[in-house]
Amino acid sequence: MELAMIGLGKMGSNMATRLMRGGHRVVGFDRSKASVDSAAQGGVVGAYSLEEALGKLSSSPKILWVMVPSGAPTTETIQQAATLLNPGDVIIDGGNSNYKDTLQHADLLAAKGIEFVDCGTSGGVWGLAEGYSLMIGGKQEITDRLSPIFETLAPGKDKGWGRVGPHGSGHYVKMIHNGIEYGMMQAYAEGFGILKGKKEFGLDLAQIAHIWQSGSVVRSWLLDLTANALDADAELKDIKPWVADSGEGRWTVFEAIDLDVPAPIITLALQMRFASRDEENYPARLLSALRNQFGGHAIKKDN
Amino acid sequence: MELAMIGLGKMGSNMATRLMRGGHRVVGFDRSKASVDSAAQGGVVGAYSLEEALGKLSSSPKILWVMVPSGAPTTETIQQAATLLNPGDVIIDGGNSNYKDTLQHADLLAAKGIEFVDCGTSGGVWGLAEGYSLMIGGKQEITDRLSPIFETLAPGKDKGWGRVGPHGSGHYVKMIHNGIEYGMMQAYAEGFGILKGKKEFGLDLAQIAHIWQSGSVVRSWLLDLTANALDADAELKDIKPWVADSGEGRWTVFEAIDLDVPAPIITLALQMRFASRDEENYPARLLSALRNQFGGHAIKKDN
Repeated sequence: MELAMIGLGKMGSNMATRLMRGGHRVVGFDRSKASVDSAAQGGVVGAYSLEEALGKLSSSPKILWVMVPSGAPTTETIQQAATLLNPGDVIIDGGNSNYKDTLQHADLLAAKGIEFVDCGTSGGVWGLAEGYSLMIGGKQEITDRLSPIFETLAPGKDKGWGRVGPHGSGHYVKMIHNGIEYGMMQAYAEGFGILKGKKEFGLDLAQIAHIWQSGSVVRSWLLDLTANALDADAELKDIKPWVADSGEGRWTVFEAIDLDVPAPIITLALQMRFASRDEENYPARLLSALRNQFGGHAIKKDN
Repeated sequence: MELAMIGLGKMGSNMATRLMRGGHRVVGFDRSKASVDSAAQGGVVGAYSLEEALGKLSSSPKILWVMVPSGAPTTETIQQAATLLNPGDVIIDGGNSNYKDTLQHADLLAAKGIEFVDCGTSGGVWGLAEGYSLMIGGKQEITDRLSPIFETLAPGKDKGWGRVGPHGSGHYVKMIHNGIEYGMMQAYAEGFGILKGKKEFGLDLAQIAHIWQSGSVVRSWLLDLTANALDADAELKDIKPWVADSGEGRWTVFEAIDLDVPAPIITLALQMRFASRDEENYPARLLSALRNQFGGHAIKKDN
């Protein structure tokens, strides 16, 4: 098939490459000229504006895969595309949009007769080689029509992708996927933290990660990545203990609250990321002050 | 090689089978006569007492693999074996002993000149086919001598097993493995709980688990098992929401406390199991009573 990939960052450029390897024609646009030039060297038909990208698509209806950061960049791209596309054309939002934004995008596009599916996309930088896990929300008939694209991007023709429900459900399922990821990552992090704390056994954390990769109950792709990281430096000395979050974890927690569904450890995994970034740690200062107030316990001075 | 497998439950009998398939001679004893009879039909040399098992071992030094429940059964087995074995003979504790017990067992056996390694064993009922992940604590030379046994039980000759440190460290690493498992399981459980709560999308939880199995960041063996369980009945209607714990999770939490190492989500995952079993839920009754006390909020009557 033929499609325009809008956004040629780490995800978009790798997905364009996987699509081309699968025999699809890919037109590519990115706000960064350097990204377009780089993708063009790899075989993408380069475009330096959204209009140019659409103009370089030869088949109709046109297919546009939006792979830009969630929030304003995605909304603006979809709004602009809506003014340029014709009824029957298709937009796929493959990014990490909040599903509530996605429902609004779906309404906006439906009013203009433009088809739309949301596609939660997992796989990170390994997706190019291993394929992406794709969670699709939207009409069955549009999903079916796009299936050659999904089959190429996924790990296999019938593996790792599927339509999970109506508009918004693809991004919803991807959001929960990431919430689970927060909990899993924190579980590994705590476990290896305890192993590191048990000095007298002189444990080799990288060796342990490798042992667990085969046959153990905790084997997983995240464990494989843990083993890679520990191989590089089991002390992780050059890595600041400061953990970002990029939206989906907190949205999962909001959603659990909206639904009155308990999700304590996903919530706590998110909070631990906040704690990692709280260099002032006012609460710990206050706890120390209170112990001093009621019990005269010594306070450690901060310099 | 030749060894006596003491304990022919789900783990011991499968491990005996895997060892025999690998060309080892296995004598088997279990307190249950039926378990011995069943194992004997599978090719194990059956023994109906520990003495008989040791008597049926033809090579020297004798090798005894203890695979009985942790706590008193393991300690009693090791104490009894210590009276029957000779210096140079070897005991492997493959069960889930608390590593502090293991350190005592190592001392007891060292005093008699009996060699000992602890072997944390993961893999559950799938280990027979896929191999077991083995975390070994003890002397390097004894581990080396036993390596043909470990190579057969593990997923591969050089895969999924290793000596991680001195006596006790094998069970220590297995304990932390299980603690991580608690956190991972709770993360999946909460994520699928939120998906189930989002009624309007009509999500098919088994389908979603299967999509995630390929290419996603949360792919893992535990996710494979989740997919199996949801295939059987995505509503899980016949399963009481009551979750046991079998020691290693709580020991991980004790250990984190002993080491002053934060492990909040592993701790909380354990607590959520307690909550699942707290059918009286006195704390929730008290919360409801207090809301009524200070705000006149309605109380739901318990029949």
